[in-house]
Amino acid sequence: MRILGIDPGTSLIGYGIIDFDGKKYIMVDCGDFKTPSNTKNRERVATVYNFFNKLIAKHKPDKISLESLFIFKNSKTVIQVSELRGVIMLAAVNSGVAIDEFTPLQVKQAVSGYGRAEKDQVQRMVSLILGQKNIPGPDDVADALALAICCANTIVY
Amino acid sequence: MRILGIDPGTSLIGYGIIDFDGKKYIMVDCGDFKTPSNTKNRERVATVYNFFNKLIAKHKPDKISLESLFIFKNSKTVIQVSELRGVIMLAAVNSGVAIDEFTPLQVKQAVSGYGRAEKDQVQRMVSLILGQKNIPGPDDVADALALAICCANTIVY
Repeated sequence: MRILGIDPGTSLIGYGIIDFDGKKYIMVDCGDFKTPSNTKNRERVATVYNFFNKLIAKHKPDKISLESLFIFKNSKTVIQVSELRGVIMLAAVNSGVAIDEFTPLQVKQAVSGYGRAEKDQVQRMVSLILGQKNIPGPDDVADALALAICCANTIVY
Repeated sequence: MRILGIDPGTSLIGYGIIDFDGKKYIMVDCGDFKTPSNTKNRERVATVYNFFNKLIAKHKPDKISLESLFIFKNSKTVIQVSELRGVIMLAAVNSGVAIDEFTPLQVKQAVSGYGRAEKDQVQRMVSLILGQKNIPGPDDVADALALAICCANTIVY
């Protein structure tokens, strides 16, 4: 079972792909997709859509794991992130890949056993679970891999 | 100049198309796109995207006029509406149609000269401007036509 975890932000979207056979987690790929922070979303939607279409076509995940969104302090951010979530969902649906959504609490519990774990704790646990020295790139990449691990844990073998 | 106004909601999205030559507004088409209210957005994004792709291909608007989103009382609604806005933007961008955004205040001012106009006042003014007895369907259709009129008023001839 191959799972693509995606942590959508505005100018930075983390992603991580893992394989899980019911016992072992293998990291396949991870990284982030960046657009300049001063870009308007109407100029961003097509590049985000095309990037994830290609990533899905390349890695052929069985599932996509997305973080559930809640109220942000900054309402402009929640609107922009949601617009990009919409086109990521569309890329998944058009490729016939099922989407699962998890809350930050579920994700943190899945990797650290504790729903209020700190960022660096999540990062360390993700490295450990995937047998990596460290996870390259910003927190969003480790968060995306944590989303994939969380999704893997819900699969019954 | 042909303008497509779109008023995105979750289960109901109003749209209205007008032609404007600098003097006269002509209503070309209007209506709404409905999905069951209990549908999850991941099941909705593709149908919304396909609907607006077809509508744009049929009517070939020069511009698309979208309402700017602000904080809603219901944060779940703002997330869902934004996700659908994302795929509507994508349909516009992929068809090469420019997007303009207007605040509810700008739209109300454009049709009634008063930024705090009531729903039925907007509806009556839209009917009058377009020379229609009444605008069929829910408020969202008149709102979409008002968005198209507001966008038309910004064009310099």
